[in-house]
Amino acid sequence: MSSSKLGLVPTLRRVIADGASGDDVKVSGWVRSVRVQKRMAFAEISDGSTLRGIQVVMEDPQMARGLTTGCSVEIAGTLSDSPGREQSKEIQVSSIKIVGPADAESYPLQKKRHTLEFLREIGHLRPRSQTISAVTRLRHCAEKGLHKFFHDNEFVRVHTPALTSNDCEGGGETFSVTTSGTENPETDFFNKRVNLTVSGQLHLEVFAGAFKRVYNFNPAFRAEPSQTGRHLSEFWMVEAECAFVDSLSTLVSVEEEMVRSTTQFLVDNAGPELDFFARDSDRLGPLMRRLADQQPYVCITYTEAIDILQRADPLAKFQFKPRWGQGLQSEHERYLATTHFEGPVFVTDYPVAIKPFYMLPNPDGRTVACMDLLVPGPCELLGGSLREHDYSQLKGAIESKGFEMESLDWYLSLRKHGTTPHAGFGMGFERFLQMVTGLESVRDIIPFPRHAGRCQY
Amino acid sequence: MSSSKLGLVPTLRRVIADGASGDDVKVSGWVRSVRVQKRMAFAEISDGSTLRGIQVVMEDPQMARGLTTGCSVEIAGTLSDSPGREQSKEIQVSSIKIVGPADAESYPLQKKRHTLEFLREIGHLRPRSQTISAVTRLRHCAEKGLHKFFHDNEFVRVHTPALTSNDCEGGGETFSVTTSGTENPETDFFNKRVNLTVSGQLHLEVFAGAFKRVYNFNPAFRAEPSQTGRHLSEFWMVEAECAFVDSLSTLVSVEEEMVRSTTQFLVDNAGPELDFFARDSDRLGPLMRRLADQQPYVCITYTEAIDILQRADPLAKFQFKPRWGQGLQSEHERYLATTHFEGPVFVTDYPVAIKPFYMLPNPDGRTVACMDLLVPGPCELLGGSLREHDYSQLKGAIESKGFEMESLDWYLSLRKHGTTPHAGFGMGFERFLQMVTGLESVRDIIPFPRHAGRCQY
Repeated sequence: MSSSKLGLVPTLRRVIADGASGDDVKVSGWVRSVRVQKRMAFAEISDGSTLRGIQVVMEDPQMARGLTTGCSVEIAGTLSDSPGREQSKEIQVSSIKIVGPADAESYPLQKKRHTLEFLREIGHLRPRSQTISAVTRLRHCAEKGLHKFFHDNEFVRVHTPALTSNDCEGGGETFSVTTSGTENPETDFFNKRVNLTVSGQLHLEVFAGAFKRVYNFNPAFRAEPSQTGRHLSEFWMVEAECAFVDSLSTLVSVEEEMVRSTTQFLVDNAGPELDFFARDSDRLGPLMRRLADQQPYVCITYTEAIDILQRADPLAKFQFKPRWGQGLQSEHERYLATTHFEGPVFVTDYPVAIKPFYMLPNPDGRTVACMDLLVPGPCELLGGSLREHDYSQLKGAIESKGFEMESLDWYLSLRKHGTTPHAGFGMGFERFLQMVTGLESVRDIIPFPRHAGRCQY
Repeated sequence: MSSSKLGLVPTLRRVIADGASGDDVKVSGWVRSVRVQKRMAFAEISDGSTLRGIQVVMEDPQMARGLTTGCSVEIAGTLSDSPGREQSKEIQVSSIKIVGPADAESYPLQKKRHTLEFLREIGHLRPRSQTISAVTRLRHCAEKGLHKFFHDNEFVRVHTPALTSNDCEGGGETFSVTTSGTENPETDFFNKRVNLTVSGQLHLEVFAGAFKRVYNFNPAFRAEPSQTGRHLSEFWMVEAECAFVDSLSTLVSVEEEMVRSTTQFLVDNAGPELDFFARDSDRLGPLMRRLADQQPYVCITYTEAIDILQRADPLAKFQFKPRWGQGLQSEHERYLATTHFEGPVFVTDYPVAIKPFYMLPNPDGRTVACMDLLVPGPCELLGGSLREHDYSQLKGAIESKGFEMESLDWYLSLRKHGTTPHAGFGMGFERFLQMVTGLESVRDIIPFPRHAGRCQY
């Protein structure tokens, strides 16, 4: 059943795509700009379904009376081919009705280009700006592409919980959830301390032990105090787990194909939006081609990465000296992805000491079977590993990392009941979009950004 | 690219669907049951991709040594047509490897049918039970069907936030989010009181003012103390908003088509799971046919509903006497959907006094342009309304309901900048699944149920 059968006015996108010159059409949307000439008037109308909206032509300038940027309108008219370069169709207006006026003085989104910082201050209106509108369509499309990848490959979607009494990473930067304050968790709503999830991995592993391939697409939460363009307190994450997988190369191929096919899906379905962002950056076009290319992404070990970093051009001037055994800093990741490889690069087999308890150690005893995917832009795009699936080994790892055994007993016991080698990963959804848009801040990528000191709307 | 190209073993579902008798196959999964005879042995293997799993046949009973319910196995063998009634294919085993044993004594999921209450106590293993496995596939499939409906009708997905400083319904049953306790919100992480969302509606309205048709599919949270089978503290909700909609009948047709097409999607893609649940209930089959049928659902006004209830068979013996001006109790909703109409029924135009501030009053001044959809099972499945889109009227409504104007100023101001008549609704995802499975408790429908006093795993 089409939207019009539901009684809904078709979107401009559909009108432009399906309509023919001469068709009578009815459209609705918001005025982006108005231009009144002596004998005619023009307005650009947008309804969020296309990058550019549509130009409507009024043969009598009187018809434009009261039209201002931001007002909502319903228009009847005739579709015609446009003589303009930037659009294929326009509408010759027969009637135009102002549904909701927008006061020209107080409407904050004028035709001129606003800074992204300014747009953040009007978060309830910025979806009408061209940039945030394009980001929103890319988000929609990228999510569609991700689901398609997982469905095509027979992953089952699992709705892992936001409320949890576990803290997967053990990072400690969690939000508490309470109805009465945090003093007495045992008398609070859940009779225990409960926090917002930082990752659904442990819960996904439960379902991987019954469905073999599972994924989620959920909000995750970090009470991260740092005020950078890469961090949000609430963000969306896609995570996946696969049972019966015992090699890192299989995991890498799943991750790589997810990124590749989702990129290709955007190229196929959101070309104008990608071009819009590529306009401001020389490197975005080639990066997108590289990501969608069938050629495998570069894959190096952590040890090789340290070696490359230590031999980096002295001009790189790292603030932190790269040393085996230490985590890679953002500046190191940026050097690898942006400067050295100029594209996506998997870094595998990090030292055991800097990684979480659940990762499977390699036979060398010094490293774990894990990887990060580094990319130009957000740097770390995704991280994953083989999981320790042996009961005694996992018990030892939990103990040696100093976790409370009690809160993880259910997780540990999965290894007693038909355990399998398994592997999984998580990707920050906003970081993926940061990569494809080239935007500096994830605050412009999520509809309502939350970070330290800020939770508006 | 198929899963096998990714290096993943194909699912049983695919093996059964795509394989031919005589094919060499490799499969993996968990043993559901083992039967050893004198000259042969049989096992049922499941990997969560099908309702029944597959029977594997071992010509030498020695091959079954060590096989127990719950252990994980990798099997190589030959596909053959099954002589059994309940399955189309089986596997003649050439080799079987136990990947992860399951101790026969301590493995809690034995072949016998367990109660749902018992399964809740082993939440980390219950996804392997036939019931929870079927629910999980139905969840996956229903979500797919919902996205398909919204994509087909050009709705844009918006990721509304979980963390918010607003409380849409004003119900007050919200969870606080904090890093330092709730005493001093102004020195806490966000410098203000922040809670978990009860609804993304207000945020969706922001995006409806730019994209015309938007939806979300998010977790929502209620610190609801009641311990019934209909309430969860964390649940998934799908909500939608449409701009330029000024009639309740248009909204009803969108809602109805969403329920109808998602039901039809389940019928087309999850038939065995639906049959599994319909086995225990006479009314499920007819209900699903009614939901998927093209015939419009019954639609009555609240006033008509009260009239029906007041004239109900005295045997109905309501605890609460139905009276105009009072909300409908669960027992009233159940009577209407289950006893009187025996199917879905829209109830529209409730009294203004019992509905939230954002709903559009009808010309009669006594009622608002809203509806609930009542169905057998969960009773209230979804609720929606036209929204007040006039600045002064909305301001008056906010004041008269006693809300702080300051926290809603952004929402109110949307009515100043190109407002449009608009409408929207929200549906509890677990309630939809409760309806199609006939399960009594939503605790068996969400992977990890959270409710008062309970937040395990």
